Amino acid sequence: MDAQPITIVTYEWVPEFARGFVRDLRLRWAAEEAGLPYRIETVPARPKSEAHLAMQPFGQVPILKDGAATVFESGAILWLLGERSEALAPRDPVARTEVLQWVFAALNSVEPLTSAWVIAKGFDRDDAQAERAAGRMAPRLAALEQRLAGRDFVAADRFSIADILLADVLRVLDTQGGLAVHPALAAYVARMTGRPGFRKAWADQMAHWQAAEARRKPG
Amino acid sequence: MDAQPITIVTYEWVPEFARGFVRDLRLRWAAEEAGLPYRIETVPARPKSEAHLAMQPFGQVPILKDGAATVFESGAILWLLGERSEALAPRDPVARTEVLQWVFAALNSVEPLTSAWVIAKGFDRDDAQAERAAGRMAPRLAALEQRLAGRDFVAADRFSIADILLADVLRVLDTQGGLAVHPALAAYVARMTGRPGFRKAWADQMAHWQAAEARRKPG
Repeated sequence: MDAQPITIVTYEWVPEFARGFVRDLRLRWAAEEAGLPYRIETVPARPKSEAHLAMQPFGQVPILKDGAATVFESGAILWLLGERSEALAPRDPVARTEVLQWVFAALNSVEPLTSAWVIAKGFDRDDAQAERAAGRMAPRLAALEQRLAGRDFVAADRFSIADILLADVLRVLDTQGGLAVHPALAAYVARMTGRPGFRKAWADQMAHWQAAEARRKPG
Repeated sequence: MDAQPITIVTYEWVPEFARGFVRDLRLRWAAEEAGLPYRIETVPARPKSEAHLAMQPFGQVPILKDGAATVFESGAILWLLGERSEALAPRDPVARTEVLQWVFAALNSVEPLTSAWVIAKGFDRDDAQAERAAGRMAPRLAALEQRLAGRDFVAADRFSIADILLADVLRVLDTQGGLAVHPALAAYVARMTGRPGFRKAWADQMAHWQAAEARRKPG
């Protein structure tokens, strides 16, 4: 990556239920924490455009454009931004490794289980499926609750991209009431989403959808 | 990481259905591809030991021990091994970034969806849940099928840790018949699991369980 402003690619418009949850938020938040200027470009959420699928075979967002290069997967992009900015990840090898393992833990050992429950409860509305998902998620949340009861941040005693990812995952869970019996996790989410970087990122994403909505309505 | 042999921590024993699927396989495979010598240490699968939970808060395996350092999450460990060995990941920045994005794609955009289907079909045996999971997984598999129809490897035109992770994810799906209508993905899995590195890793893991089984039975 070089010094010119990065570009974050997100959807042009999404329905109301998705606003505040599209994952360009993770990149906006990281950019705010690091003081990295960025521009926004958009692609239609559906139907997917050829240009979008050429950058991202699954038609997901966000995508980072950095000069001629494009990168997808919010985890990969945050890792690269962390290599660029010490505000996002430590340089010390031991601390860097601890952040790396929690980046993967958030995305591969926490999010799949919390997502399964959110989908069962909020989308499929299938009680039996939700109960099984809750049973699988519970031991992971209990372990995280214990870890975060005595810590401000999940890794390396400092704010990092691991917090951006884990807090974003837990924030989504919280919207469905999934943190009701986990006070340390609820406090962690409140702490992380209370940071000026998150608040600015969230406000900017919501303003983006409001502007898109306004363009869709006859003047 | 330094030059002394690494240690891979896995379970002492698992039931037969889990053999060949415990994720130390991913690390063994990477070590074989890179020619990295390694030792195996074990922890009980259940109940979890205090020593295990001190290294891995969720009680998962594998864990990498490297001198005094321990690292968990197979994705994080493979990324670190990839930084150590060019057999596992390219040094060129553009190719490295492509591998990075497919590492995260395999673990955060493919595996959660394929796992949801495998769990619904193979564990929960819930037809409605399996059908919904199949619907969510289908577009991702179709996109991957298209990508791998014209490529030997998923990223950067070469074998890498992205192939270890993606092929391992798809291999599990294949055991439940999930690749029946995806010939390019089935051929990819066959190609990757036909590599000497995978075959050695798989044979070594199976020998580990057989030895554990023999120790549990009265002589």
